[in-house]
Amino acid sequence: MLGVDPGLTRCGLGVVDGGTGRTVSCVAVDVVRTPVDDTLERRLLAVSDAVEHWLDTYRPEAVAVERVFSQHNVRTAMGTAQAGGVVALAAARRGLPVVFHTPSEVKAAVTGSGRADKAQVTGMVTRLLGLAQAPRPADAADALALAICHLWRQPMRDRLAEAEARAAELARAHKARLAAAAKSAGAVPAVVPRGANMRTPGKGVRG
Amino acid sequence: MLGVDPGLTRCGLGVVDGGTGRTVSCVAVDVVRTPVDDTLERRLLAVSDAVEHWLDTYRPEAVAVERVFSQHNVRTAMGTAQAGGVVALAAARRGLPVVFHTPSEVKAAVTGSGRADKAQVTGMVTRLLGLAQAPRPADAADALALAICHLWRQPMRDRLAEAEARAAELARAHKARLAAAAKSAGAVPAVVPRGANMRTPGKGVRG
Repeated sequence: MLGVDPGLTRCGLGVVDGGTGRTVSCVAVDVVRTPVDDTLERRLLAVSDAVEHWLDTYRPEAVAVERVFSQHNVRTAMGTAQAGGVVALAAARRGLPVVFHTPSEVKAAVTGSGRADKAQVTGMVTRLLGLAQAPRPADAADALALAICHLWRQPMRDRLAEAEARAAELARAHKARLAAAAKSAGAVPAVVPRGANMRTPGKGVRG
Repeated sequence: MLGVDPGLTRCGLGVVDGGTGRTVSCVAVDVVRTPVDDTLERRLLAVSDAVEHWLDTYRPEAVAVERVFSQHNVRTAMGTAQAGGVVALAAARRGLPVVFHTPSEVKAAVTGSGRADKAQVTGMVTRLLGLAQAPRPADAADALALAICHLWRQPMRDRLAEAEARAAELARAHKARLAAAAKSAGAVPAVVPRGANMRTPGKGVRG
């Protein structure tokens, strides 16, 4: 699992392996920097090249990217969003699933609190991965936290998707039984008109 | 010149040729759409593929992209920024310069007013390019307006950059003369201390 804390000035990259249960281990972590005085397109190219190199080197099964919401500095937020966009693009080119997690989802996953500060996140990441030293800067720790968050949340998402699929199947079977009963009775049942949609629509869960 | 009005739902693309003076002609214009219910990374990939196809087909010398500022809908603004990011990336991969123009710069360039509405922009674009029909939807007209804006602004930027370079050269020559005078007088001139920076710093103009 590759976690990416996108950014132009600093872009955190962290690869985490998920073992059995909740065991996780750090495969690689780094921060890519691009010069502040370079043009936007060349900074995006540098981020893209770095991410493509990591994807080809570590061959993760999925990519977790921090979702950017509004920030105080609009210019920074846009740069961050654009960096996240080129990361998602690199993954899509390789057919890898991309999942976006908000900062509070990530904090909650690794510390138990969505409002944990950077030091708490870094501390928990260091302990969870059994690292001798805390990853620095915070962007590196954030990238690892994202990967851990995704590894832990994914089974829950999978179970949810499975439960929804089962519910849909039950609804289909129920509808078929009703239709068969209606046919054998030679009449449209009063409570379930023909063509009524009995499928549970659910909310599509993206893996 | 390729103008791009970035977006995921609709991405406007317009290629404009600059003739002598202020003559401009439309080479191609289209709007790329990506399905709203597709994943973000696949929508970005579709935009990227389309832009790469246009770059390879029309071989523009530069790419003008609409600069996104805050919008009411943060999610839309982020998607637009990410689409703009993959467009800039595609251009950077081919070594093409990318220039970002704000909507008001574009409106001012083609209509004379930074507050012109969509109908006015479309109307002027149609007249300037001598089109039989107004380009539809507005995103297509916006992409053409961006390309025109860039074609018309670029010479002004070039002249400005030239003037700055000339000013810097004059300042360097002046400094050299002062240094020579100080040396021949055998003393540091009182008003211009050694090491004083006489270069006019200017603001870097990106082409």
